[in-house]
Amino acid sequence: MSVIYDRVALIGLGLIASSMFWAMKRAGVADEVTGYAKSQETRETARRIGLCDRVCDTAQQAVEGADLVVLCVPVGVMGAVAAEIAPALKPGCTVTDVGSVKRDVIANVSPHLPEGVHFVPGHPLAGTEHSGPESGFAELFENRWCLLVPPEGTDREAVARLRRLWEALGSNVDEMEAEHHDLVLAVTSHAPHLIAYTMVGVADDLGRVTDSEVIQYSAAGFRDFTRIASSNPVMWRDICIANRAALSDVMERYIAEMGELAQALRRGDGDHLLEIFARAKTARDRYIDGILDSSE
Amino acid sequence: MSVIYDRVALIGLGLIASSMFWAMKRAGVADEVTGYAKSQETRETARRIGLCDRVCDTAQQAVEGADLVVLCVPVGVMGAVAAEIAPALKPGCTVTDVGSVKRDVIANVSPHLPEGVHFVPGHPLAGTEHSGPESGFAELFENRWCLLVPPEGTDREAVARLRRLWEALGSNVDEMEAEHHDLVLAVTSHAPHLIAYTMVGVADDLGRVTDSEVIQYSAAGFRDFTRIASSNPVMWRDICIANRAALSDVMERYIAEMGELAQALRRGDGDHLLEIFARAKTARDRYIDGILDSSE
Repeated sequence: MSVIYDRVALIGLGLIASSMFWAMKRAGVADEVTGYAKSQETRETARRIGLCDRVCDTAQQAVEGADLVVLCVPVGVMGAVAAEIAPALKPGCTVTDVGSVKRDVIANVSPHLPEGVHFVPGHPLAGTEHSGPESGFAELFENRWCLLVPPEGTDREAVARLRRLWEALGSNVDEMEAEHHDLVLAVTSHAPHLIAYTMVGVADDLGRVTDSEVIQYSAAGFRDFTRIASSNPVMWRDICIANRAALSDVMERYIAEMGELAQALRRGDGDHLLEIFARAKTARDRYIDGILDSSE
Repeated sequence: MSVIYDRVALIGLGLIASSMFWAMKRAGVADEVTGYAKSQETRETARRIGLCDRVCDTAQQAVEGADLVVLCVPVGVMGAVAAEIAPALKPGCTVTDVGSVKRDVIANVSPHLPEGVHFVPGHPLAGTEHSGPESGFAELFENRWCLLVPPEGTDREAVARLRRLWEALGSNVDEMEAEHHDLVLAVTSHAPHLIAYTMVGVADDLGRVTDSEVIQYSAAGFRDFTRIASSNPVMWRDICIANRAALSDVMERYIAEMGELAQALRRGDGDHLLEIFARAKTARDRYIDGILDSSE
């Protein structure tokens, strides 16, 4: 594969950035990849394991001369990092990010970027339960979606080039508007995390009473259901706060539907329950198995 | 292994009963196992595949002379089946069941059983997404919990004998009170099913608007989370109605906790979210990983 960007800068060196580095090197799509992390310990680890061609001690050094800058920091600090690197950005370069929320990131990053720099926000739908510079691997993005969310008026050539990069890393790429992205992610990812935290909290209340029988007797389903409750609480606080408008709407819908179920239970209305269950089974079998059949 | 019951009758021939048959035969703990299913098609399938030593055309024929009768029918019909077999039960035999709810089953079954018959309600915590007489396999109960819920005053020898049977099938056996069982199962199994149905319903509402992008872009987590929404809606209606007292209490707790999260989101209260997330992560890591480390 031929080079897509001569120089790429990775700002933040966690799971996503380290996986991007190994994947870009394997694909041969970037000549030099620089990296920066706020923590000295992370920078030292990166140097030790050969993560990035050059690890820099400031974010500005890392982005100097870069054709592509990838913000791989928590969504809560994207704006501050953009302000920090802005003076050092090469004219005409592309800035992207990998945050799980897009409206909030766009609102916080865009104002800092100089005229002539192309901002193409992105979100690779990939992850594991691990984090940090040593958790990355080149295959993370294979057959995963990467969503690009360019604001109206973004340079089309800049978008097309970033798309080629993600495709070279093995991803399927699609474009959508930021507001739509945030709603879809609230339903498929952010709300499930909130629900998993809720389930563990309720089980824990009961567990204290019952010497953890709740967990002891729980079928594998409950364990799987709540696995994501072991995710990094700080990262998820930031994501939830950044997407709070869409997410609180989705949560209100869940609460309303669960309230309907609880009421049907109280009045012993089996017909109503059956109607809801049958509709959900049909929807899941149709949508999900259809997708799985065609893609896996 | 030596014989524990000379004759066992399985009433209802789905996943649990067929797995019990193969497991009992493998362990050599029952001399003759009879079986009955309401549907003629199921009885014919059972005869064709050699499920049960003798398949009977009525439930009364199946239980005649049996030392152990296992009710493997949906929880909604346990009472009617108990009434049907009662006149044919051998004096001194043990009747058990495999229903997912215990208070409701005990209330519906006990009144029909004659004096001198021992009723020891049970619940093997095992299952797959498959059902029917051809879905059973001898290993289903290995390393799974089986909960026995004998009402106060139950003959201890009858309980001990049934425990030996489940242990011979590979299960870990524990005893608890019916009310406690129903609350624990509401938290670990029944409420998760209701939540999965809710999640699919909300996603479906959105999916119709967005050409099923919700599912297309959903990470594996959402798919796993909602897999149980493909379970049999009729069986789950019956379970939820039978356990509606405990289950509606648990649902109200979920709704209250989710409401608290939604309010914290609306006011942008990241500290409160972090507190809830961190507590849940600690609880899950402590309880679940502790259990997994020690048992798997």
